[in-house]
Amino acid sequence: MLKVGIIGATGYTGSELVRLLHFHPEAEIEFITSESHKGKLFSDIHSQFKGLADIELKSVDEIEAERVDVLFLALPHGVSMEFVKKFINYDVKIIDLSGDFRLSGKSIYEEWYNKAHSFEEGFSKAVFGLPELWIEEIALAKLVANPGCFPTGAILTTAPLVKSKLIDNTRIVIDSKTGVTGAGIKAKEVTHFPNVNDNFKPYGVKYHRHTIEIQEQLSKVGDNETTIQFTPHLLPIDRGILTSAYLFPNKKISEDELKSIYEDFYKDSYFVRIIDQTPEVKNVRGTNFADIYPAYDERTNTILVFSAIDNLVKGASGEAIQNMNLMFGLKEQTGLNQIPIKP
Amino acid sequence: MLKVGIIGATGYTGSELVRLLHFHPEAEIEFITSESHKGKLFSDIHSQFKGLADIELKSVDEIEAERVDVLFLALPHGVSMEFVKKFINYDVKIIDLSGDFRLSGKSIYEEWYNKAHSFEEGFSKAVFGLPELWIEEIALAKLVANPGCFPTGAILTTAPLVKSKLIDNTRIVIDSKTGVTGAGIKAKEVTHFPNVNDNFKPYGVKYHRHTIEIQEQLSKVGDNETTIQFTPHLLPIDRGILTSAYLFPNKKISEDELKSIYEDFYKDSYFVRIIDQTPEVKNVRGTNFADIYPAYDERTNTILVFSAIDNLVKGASGEAIQNMNLMFGLKEQTGLNQIPIKP
Amino acid sequence: MLKVGIIGATGYTGSELVRLLHFHPEAEIEFITSESHKGKLFSDIHSQFKGLADIELKSVDEIEAERVDVLFLALPHGVSMEFVKKFINYDVKIIDLSGDFRLSGKSIYEEWYNKAHSFEEGFSKAVFGLPELWIEEIALAKLVANPGCFPTGAILTTAPLVKSKLIDNTRIVIDSKTGVTGAGIKAKEVTHFPNVNDNFKPYGVKYHRHTIEIQEQLSKVGDNETTIQFTPHLLPIDRGILTSAYLFPNKKISEDELKSIYEDFYKDSYFVRIIDQTPEVKNVRGTNFADIYPAYDERTNTILVFSAIDNLVKGASGEAIQNMNLMFGLKEQTGLNQIPIKP
Amino acid sequence: MLKVGIIGATGYTGSELVRLLHFHPEAEIEFITSESHKGKLFSDIHSQFKGLADIELKSVDEIEAERVDVLFLALPHGVSMEFVKKFINYDVKIIDLSGDFRLSGKSIYEEWYNKAHSFEEGFSKAVFGLPELWIEEIALAKLVANPGCFPTGAILTTAPLVKSKLIDNTRIVIDSKTGVTGAGIKAKEVTHFPNVNDNFKPYGVKYHRHTIEIQEQLSKVGDNETTIQFTPHLLPIDRGILTSAYLFPNKKISEDELKSIYEDFYKDSYFVRIIDQTPEVKNVRGTNFADIYPAYDERTNTILVFSAIDNLVKGASGEAIQNMNLMFGLKEQTGLNQIPIKP
Repeated sequence: MLKVGIIGATGYTGSELVRLLHFHPEAEIEFITSESHKGKLFSDIHSQFKGLADIELKSVDEIEAERVDVLFLALPHGVSMEFVKKFINYDVKIIDLSGDFRLSGKSIYEEWYNKAHSFEEGFSKAVFGLPELWIEEIALAKLVANPGCFPTGAILTTAPLVKSKLIDNTRIVIDSKTGVTGAGIKAKEVTHFPNVNDNFKPYGVKYHRHTIEIQEQLSKVGDNETTIQFTPHLLPIDRGILTSAYLFPNKKISEDELKSIYEDFYKDSYFVRIIDQTPEVKNVRGTNFADIYPAYDERTNTILVFSAIDNLVKGASGEAIQNMNLMFGLKEQTGLNQIPIKP
Repeated sequence: MLKVGIIGATGYTGSELVRLLHFHPEAEIEFITSESHKGKLFSDIHSQFKGLADIELKSVDEIEAERVDVLFLALPHGVSMEFVKKFINYDVKIIDLSGDFRLSGKSIYEEWYNKAHSFEEGFSKAVFGLPELWIEEIALAKLVANPGCFPTGAILTTAPLVKSKLIDNTRIVIDSKTGVTGAGIKAKEVTHFPNVNDNFKPYGVKYHRHTIEIQEQLSKVGDNETTIQFTPHLLPIDRGILTSAYLFPNKKISEDELKSIYEDFYKDSYFVRIIDQTPEVKNVRGTNFADIYPAYDERTNTILVFSAIDNLVKGASGEAIQNMNLMFGLKEQTGLNQIPIKP
Repeated sequence: MLKVGIIGATGYTGSELVRLLHFHPEAEIEFITSESHKGKLFSDIHSQFKGLADIELKSVDEIEAERVDVLFLALPHGVSMEFVKKFINYDVKIIDLSGDFRLSGKSIYEEWYNKAHSFEEGFSKAVFGLPELWIEEIALAKLVANPGCFPTGAILTTAPLVKSKLIDNTRIVIDSKTGVTGAGIKAKEVTHFPNVNDNFKPYGVKYHRHTIEIQEQLSKVGDNETTIQFTPHLLPIDRGILTSAYLFPNKKISEDELKSIYEDFYKDSYFVRIIDQTPEVKNVRGTNFADIYPAYDERTNTILVFSAIDNLVKGASGEAIQNMNLMFGLKEQTGLNQIPIKP
Repeated sequence: MLKVGIIGATGYTGSELVRLLHFHPEAEIEFITSESHKGKLFSDIHSQFKGLADIELKSVDEIEAERVDVLFLALPHGVSMEFVKKFINYDVKIIDLSGDFRLSGKSIYEEWYNKAHSFEEGFSKAVFGLPELWIEEIALAKLVANPGCFPTGAILTTAPLVKSKLIDNTRIVIDSKTGVTGAGIKAKEVTHFPNVNDNFKPYGVKYHRHTIEIQEQLSKVGDNETTIQFTPHLLPIDRGILTSAYLFPNKKISEDELKSIYEDFYKDSYFVRIIDQTPEVKNVRGTNFADIYPAYDERTNTILVFSAIDNLVKGASGEAIQNMNLMFGLKEQTGLNQIPIKP
């Protein structure tokens, strides 16, 4: 039985880790920390857990990290790097859900995050935790940088084509739409109900920092400099990311050929479902699945690929547990076979 | 391992039964029927189940009911009674999710449902399947009439007080608010998105047929003729029933005393959580829990009790499985320890 | 042409005043103030007004209050009283949208608002601005205390019966449900989208401060001490209040008789629509209408009255303009004949 | 005063025509027809109009079309062509809100609508009613084919660039997101609340019939064969279309230059607001405005243009009234200066 520690309990990734780990047959939670709420119960902060996870929250100073096999860091970026630095020499594996170690290095991080990075050594140790791409590296990793929610959706949607070399990899349009939980648990003007409800808008146009994360990973998959245009939009829903990608093939292709590329690429990926109709976010709600629908429009010689994930599960905490499973030799779906809550 | 048959697969209660039974450690689905979709896969009808429940749907004429231990009837009222009649002499227990056998008899049914009843003998055999009230009777039952969603919420909210004799049981106001799934899976004008979204209204004022179901059960619990005023309202949400009940005590009472009445009444009920703050429907979403908050306003000498349930789980399919557990000697929570999906 | 000044521009009541005054044929906005945004345009704060109300915001220190005929105070309670004190001796009528002068006096205010009141003289000058009750007093008023949103809904729903003396005025249950804009424009935890969406809950149980406002007004209308039980609930919608009231008649009554009581009471009230079916909040959205549906349940000898208003219009800014019209001898509906936005 | 007749009253375009014409200072409604509801009041069908538009609905056989100056046809496509044929020789102008005469001819119509067209002569008489493009032609038209909702959004978003010849007009990606009212007033599975709420998905991929309407108009504007990739998505909101367009310039361009192209193109267009931030659908709700935000990403050499309209107003009934104004020599904004309902 794996012993698990969770650093940071007050956000959505923290509460989803607890929801999913609760039923994990091979893991149990040893401690959860929160500096702002230490001494309270986890269920005081997340009231839905009353009677289910009445665990007392500890300060990070009170815990003994060596007692666990794996630490999940569910912290804001900029904060997380300090804890990675602190725990990296302990005999414990680390899964960092922040953005602090997802990019290739310090300078690119500082450019896109507009923030100084205090632990450069971490970059070389970190493995990008997208199991559908890097399953072998993850299995050996000491430190996993869990992908961003948009990047998980965008990369899964386009990687098979980028790798195939059949498309123009300098012109990839990724039009993403996310639920509000992507903005975190803290109330802000942008998440104020009347600003979101019955509304819809793009944001972060041109400069969203997930752009570089997607680009770096696709460039690595395709072994070729890849350029993407990434635009997020805010949906009036809680959970879910729908990615619409437009790619331009070098020559005509058939839809069957296209579908084969996806099925081959994901033939060993339990959580990817290649489907024959447009995906919808409610079909994956609460689960670690990614539904992908590739289509080809002969009229315009354009490939369209659509995917749906739950941003808090496959886009965060579920993927983190999938990574944990791989890091400890378990089947990737262990504890992650939830059924979508629909409706 | 219990073998389970589900008659009727296309509605929400059918899909929730499959979602919940999928992980039940002591039960497995033997067949699912659908007359309108026979030959298709269950996941063709409920696309979220793709890869998870690709079960071929049978006609009821194709199945062998004797091969299962328990049959769930997930059918419309008026239709269900025919299947109860058909299967009642088989060696199989029956849990009927329709309204056909919840009331005390044929005449009261015909008055409130405005429909002829074709199987009067069923009423005497049926046990009302609210485990928090009738756990012993359910354990011995051959036929369980699973309660309506509003009645589950309303009865749990008020039964302890009705039984206590401390209130005026001729004047109980029950103001209920439900999510749209209570209206079923079939598109109707009342469930058309623009008619519900950003809207709210009461309906079924004075005459909603759940009124009599609630009244009969409370009269039985209190062993005294009880009268309720029940008004449902339609919320722009998928799932959940919030019940607000107003009751008038015969004499002053303290809030502690009130809370004790509830805690005592539900001391053995795993799924009832007596809480210290107002309940919210998202705190029980996807689960079989009922959160109840009793309060007393000394200024007006009025008792206020609020509760939240998921209408599709505790108000339908979860409660049905809870009944199955009891009918077969299992712990009531077996397979039903889901954690609320929130947010 | 009336000249209008608006003190406080950043909230929803401010933006609704501008929306409605924009087309008022007998009034024009002379200035709008905002301390936090002075120098910016009104349309910088409320972006929907771009090109429509690009009015520069002033500090209150920059404006000349004497240049206008009427001042609307769209300020938080506790703040508004200072401005009433400041402007009360100017030759300008004042309509205060806050709660600072709605109650009968300083001590009751301090008890329910838990806050010191700094301008006791204001209470005797203020007229409660519910035109359907106090049209003559409003016409003569120098200072109008515009009612709260819940009180507008609750009082309109019950006043005809309270006045009729046909009911038990010590036991009135008012179960109200409001849209989120009632909580104001500022982001808070309670208005964070994932906390509201697909959710529903009561709040302010027993102690909501609108209780006393409703009670005082009903006591005045009925000329008799009246006691109400008021419970607000939070709907996942932007606008609208649905009030469900339960009243107990002293003796049996007919539904026709009941309807006559309402029609008589409101026979001169342009904005009240007595309807024959349950009201819905979308039917009044964006308008100053109040739809009221009275019903009688002979089975239980209970009167049920349901009403719908837009909390930002009839519950705030529309009612304020209705009051302005009356204070200046205009027809009450001048500039207020919007048609509901539905869907 | 123009006399107006409306053929077809039961849909959303019919109810929006009445909402907007109600306050039109130069037009009045002479009759409204409905075959399915003749004899009832308009406010029986659209309950929000009670007391505001209690107009008796007529059969089309009862009306005298010659008595009006203009007929609005608010009918389904396939039905509308019969009425155009019937009324084309009357001395009355016709504004057809259906898709029956928007395309260039019968064969292209039959290909994309998969339906026989019974009035080929109509195509040569019809003017495409997008005033921002064809204001002079509309002024002289006898028959206006009012544009589709998606085409209005998509064409306004891209026409200035297509005309500029600065982009590759064979590769234009248009990713559109619409509110549910675009699917009409009739309840269908796709508009069933639980299928839409908290959900999001693309539909009509590759083959949506608005594709050809957009392409034909852009080809005409640019005087060059233009190819677009159009993908609609369904938002869980009532109203609004957000269009995200991706275009590829032939050479580098500056953002200022880009903005100038848009401001020049729309310099005489009252309803187009070129804005400096991402548009949101709530900023135009209930109005005839189109908010457009053009941006240029130098990193990828891609132009991104985003726009927001209300699909029922600028995308249907408001645009129809704008066309009416132009056909009768009125200013285009007459009667159309509503302020957005936000929140």
